[in-house]
Amino acid sequence: MENRYPQINPPQRLLMGPGPINADPRVLRAMSTQLIGQYDPAMTHYMNEVMALYRGVFRTENRWTLLIDGTSRAGIEAILLSAIRPGDRVLVPVFGRFGHLLCEIARRCRAEVHTIEVPWGEVFTPDRIEDAIKRVKPRLLLTVQGDTSTTMLQPLAELGAICKKYGVLFYTDATASLGGNALETDAWGLDAVSAGMQKCLGGPSGTSPITLSPQMEEAIRRRKCVEEGIRTAEHQDGDEEMIYSNYFDLGMIMDYWGPERLNHHTEATTALFGARECARLILQEGLDAGIARHKLHGDALLKGIQGMGLETFGDLKHKMNNVLGVVIPQGVNGDQVRKLMLEDFGIEIGTSFGPLHGKVWRIGTMGYNARKDCVMTTLAALEAVLTHVGFRATQGAAMQAAWDHYGSGA
Amino acid sequence: MENRYPQINPPQRLLMGPGPINADPRVLRAMSTQLIGQYDPAMTHYMNEVMALYRGVFRTENRWTLLIDGTSRAGIEAILLSAIRPGDRVLVPVFGRFGHLLCEIARRCRAEVHTIEVPWGEVFTPDRIEDAIKRVKPRLLLTVQGDTSTTMLQPLAELGAICKKYGVLFYTDATASLGGNALETDAWGLDAVSAGMQKCLGGPSGTSPITLSPQMEEAIRRRKCVEEGIRTAEHQDGDEEMIYSNYFDLGMIMDYWGPERLNHHTEATTALFGARECARLILQEGLDAGIARHKLHGDALLKGIQGMGLETFGDLKHKMNNVLGVVIPQGVNGDQVRKLMLEDFGIEIGTSFGPLHGKVWRIGTMGYNARKDCVMTTLAALEAVLTHVGFRATQGAAMQAAWDHYGSGA
Repeated sequence: MENRYPQINPPQRLLMGPGPINADPRVLRAMSTQLIGQYDPAMTHYMNEVMALYRGVFRTENRWTLLIDGTSRAGIEAILLSAIRPGDRVLVPVFGRFGHLLCEIARRCRAEVHTIEVPWGEVFTPDRIEDAIKRVKPRLLLTVQGDTSTTMLQPLAELGAICKKYGVLFYTDATASLGGNALETDAWGLDAVSAGMQKCLGGPSGTSPITLSPQMEEAIRRRKCVEEGIRTAEHQDGDEEMIYSNYFDLGMIMDYWGPERLNHHTEATTALFGARECARLILQEGLDAGIARHKLHGDALLKGIQGMGLETFGDLKHKMNNVLGVVIPQGVNGDQVRKLMLEDFGIEIGTSFGPLHGKVWRIGTMGYNARKDCVMTTLAALEAVLTHVGFRATQGAAMQAAWDHYGSGA
Repeated sequence: MENRYPQINPPQRLLMGPGPINADPRVLRAMSTQLIGQYDPAMTHYMNEVMALYRGVFRTENRWTLLIDGTSRAGIEAILLSAIRPGDRVLVPVFGRFGHLLCEIARRCRAEVHTIEVPWGEVFTPDRIEDAIKRVKPRLLLTVQGDTSTTMLQPLAELGAICKKYGVLFYTDATASLGGNALETDAWGLDAVSAGMQKCLGGPSGTSPITLSPQMEEAIRRRKCVEEGIRTAEHQDGDEEMIYSNYFDLGMIMDYWGPERLNHHTEATTALFGARECARLILQEGLDAGIARHKLHGDALLKGIQGMGLETFGDLKHKMNNVLGVVIPQGVNGDQVRKLMLEDFGIEIGTSFGPLHGKVWRIGTMGYNARKDCVMTTLAALEAVLTHVGFRATQGAAMQAAWDHYGSGA
């Protein structure tokens, strides 16, 4: 057994793709903490702290700010399954793969799904979305804030007021953007946001922070359904169709995180300890300072890539701070470059999905890896590999451009 | 921030309830390993190893033996949502709270749910289940192997042949039993089994190992549905109604774990590293040796509790090895005893649900805590606390009975 399945020992990698990225070692250490019982006062205290900490990260006063035990996709599905009743109309502005994912999940919820689309590499104007809302009259607007498939960041600040005007519930998937780009849940009028740990938050995937507005809570409570095994006389079901999932029934999950502490799943304690440490580190640095750090290193990478003579993908005015699309030069085999980067330098950069597959690399600078040394090392390795495969860049120009951006390295 | 939300530092607890229990420190160390990318050859190799290791734990040749990213309840729901088509008849033999949970989840899948029941503390004979199958003609039989709410272990060995005879798909929830009680997936003719980490497997909750028979795979494949964002011309949907979840669509999850490696969720790497270490340690000890260890320490606890003059709950012939129901003696406040155990000895024992609430404590001896020192310490603390609250037991009798069972301590 020891020979066939030795102790875990993965190769050292610098993860500079679109995520997952390397977890902050402090988060991994927090996750090696021994367990406590799920109703231990110390545990429920930590759950309450996690709620408070993520209110800070989401910039919200929402009471229901908590974790869904699953990956970021679980957070999306918990919100969509709980909010969408079969037959509800939803509007999804699609500007990349994760817009398609929202459509796909909404269809599983038996929604009537309406989409608007822009070419990959662009985003929507508020007018375009308002026009579609007027036409479709959806119950929910489902958006992606940062779609790593195109590296674009959809502006959301003006959409809340539009949704309010037409009585539409407003959701965004902030998996790839939260912590590295501004997101103002309350100021922007968002009714629900979900996120993931493995991008700018600096942890491993496996738990999904979400936040729900009082309006969203009310919509979900109307579908309340108490489990028979723990039901007592005082429990009453809601007056709307039940939620077609137990695991993702946010009504039950609120009753588990709330003072009722009604038994539901067994909270994933280790993941919660990790999520707590991520939020603690982010608020310790300062959320705005962390976002500025993502911008600084994202821009340095951009300057370096441009300095190397490579083209970038998409509308740079709407680029996420934490990921950059790099057009693979003519005559260069993108997968060969990624393989050399990984095998000979231990650096992972990303490939692309769908229409961009084979045409664009995606390089991330996020979470723990939004650091100068990560940017410089990645640029140096990429120049070396491109030179090796026959693409000619001016020697040292990429790193000099990054140094210039940092205002250092004289 | 450091003052308001200090570094994580939970109190030391010995978790002797019905689970979660203390994780094996080796598992927590494995979980502090740095991440790698989700398509890194090292990562897909670890995923394949996890499949092979859990085939050993489940005693199966089933190809589709993998992890669901969520707690044990996520594993249950993934199987039920993927296997049950709306309108399907299912039969659930209910002998405790977790039978009710299977009914509840099956109702969310829009199944026609039929139940048979025995009083809490008993299990079903195969005849009783066969009679119900003949009457109900279900498409699936949904069972719980070990229901911690009553501490009973349902015998499953003869049910597979019955299911086969009537063309019924056979599922069991082995969350609380796997690793501490015999479970023979293939020999017993099971079509699907799900488990959790936080009981006999010795890890933290957060990922759920499952296994699917070829028959179950076939049933699920008929509902295939490929996500639009990653669909290509060669993909074809199945001919049956889609699965009403994306996150729990086992067809997609198989395509992610299989050689296609079609992108779905971002595997929860840290949880996978932990699950790998749990299975590795179990197979290193030997699955049968581990089960025998659970029986040894479970029986020692039982002898000790009886030696203390306390009554036990339920039919001892069908008790799980890893948890014991202890009747709270007349005149003793069960919650006060649990509080003193926790606060003054750092030991957690369990309360009960539903009809047993306030009447029965549940004491577990499982996973890393199926150890002599855990049993002896718990018995000594319980005698001390019961003496303190006025219940008279013969001084030292509990520990002597346990020592006698161990054949040691002369």
